[in-house]
Amino acid sequence: MIKFPHSIQLLIEQFSKLPGIGPKTAERLVFSFLKWPKADKQQFAKALADINGNITFCSKCFNISEKDPCLICSDKTRDSKLLCITAESHDLAAIESTNEFKGYYHVLGGILDPLHGMTPDKLKTNELLAKVQENKLSEIILAFNPDMEGEATMIYLNDILKPFKIKITRLARGMPVGADLEYTDEITLSNAFKNRREI
Amino acid sequence: MIKFPHSIQLLIEQFSKLPGIGPKTAERLVFSFLKWPKADKQQFAKALADINGNITFCSKCFNISEKDPCLICSDKTRDSKLLCITAESHDLAAIESTNEFKGYYHVLGGILDPLHGMTPDKLKTNELLAKVQENKLSEIILAFNPDMEGEATMIYLNDILKPFKIKITRLARGMPVGADLEYTDEITLSNAFKNRREI
Repeated sequence: MIKFPHSIQLLIEQFSKLPGIGPKTAERLVFSFLKWPKADKQQFAKALADINGNITFCSKCFNISEKDPCLICSDKTRDSKLLCITAESHDLAAIESTNEFKGYYHVLGGILDPLHGMTPDKLKTNELLAKVQENKLSEIILAFNPDMEGEATMIYLNDILKPFKIKITRLARGMPVGADLEYTDEITLSNAFKNRREI
Repeated sequence: MIKFPHSIQLLIEQFSKLPGIGPKTAERLVFSFLKWPKADKQQFAKALADINGNITFCSKCFNISEKDPCLICSDKTRDSKLLCITAESHDLAAIESTNEFKGYYHVLGGILDPLHGMTPDKLKTNELLAKVQENKLSEIILAFNPDMEGEATMIYLNDILKPFKIKITRLARGMPVGADLEYTDEITLSNAFKNRREI
């Protein structure tokens, strides 16, 4: 039985290692890719090869970057008194895209999840403590997802950062834009109610 | 505003060109890929680069292949009197994986869909007619999806192949394994009823 040529089989296997991509989806992606014009295929291959050489982690904030230190850490116009801690680089990117924050970042490299082996020593917590000790910070913002692991991580960070006596904040919980009161879950609604603001 | 480093942005764009992958999913795929061990990343890049050089189309059956003619067309033990016509290479692969068919194939390269520009001249119909003329065939099997475009393609092929006076068959329509009578649509059930077999 001949299924696919060897090199196609290999590529399907590679695609199915990506999250949410099963072998059938991988097959569909590869066959669609094969129909691309040759130049486009080469461009994809080049982009993938380039990423291996070009991408590193910033040794200051642990964000992915093409340079070390990254563009944010080497930007001297930012407010060095503000530090925002995120779990991953894409959380940092999401915050950057709001244009709301002008301080520096610290990417923890994950969240606490002891059941899946994510204990504090797997995260950049020592580097965080060193950074907090060295810099005169006025505020630390914990920007984690408001889910169980995110909450646990914030509780843990709050515990280890409390001795420094710096203001520690977290992102507001409430109703997202476009939400419907009727369909909002009770915890979100209760948070939105507790944190109501004068208009 | 700094969103992502340039090379990551480029790779996200490449991934979002794949079917069913939007920019957000592409972002997730790329960030997951960045966490792979370096050797695995290089393997993916290599598999993608290799496919450009290694994959060609068989000049006989138009199946994707690493060799021309492909492994199936160069297999002399197959029955040259049987020809199975499929829309795409992955349909051919699906039939091959059943081990039911021992003849040769012809991959049409698509299905008739005039609204999306897929007219008969975009398909390998001339090559098909030449092949039918040259070979002494005893049966032509039309293996297309039983949907609207597939049915239209089969009607069209039946029309142009009829003058050769060769037996033309299509895949059986009926209930798939594991189906539930109650939830089977009327057309499938009516087909299954009409094509009932003695046991």
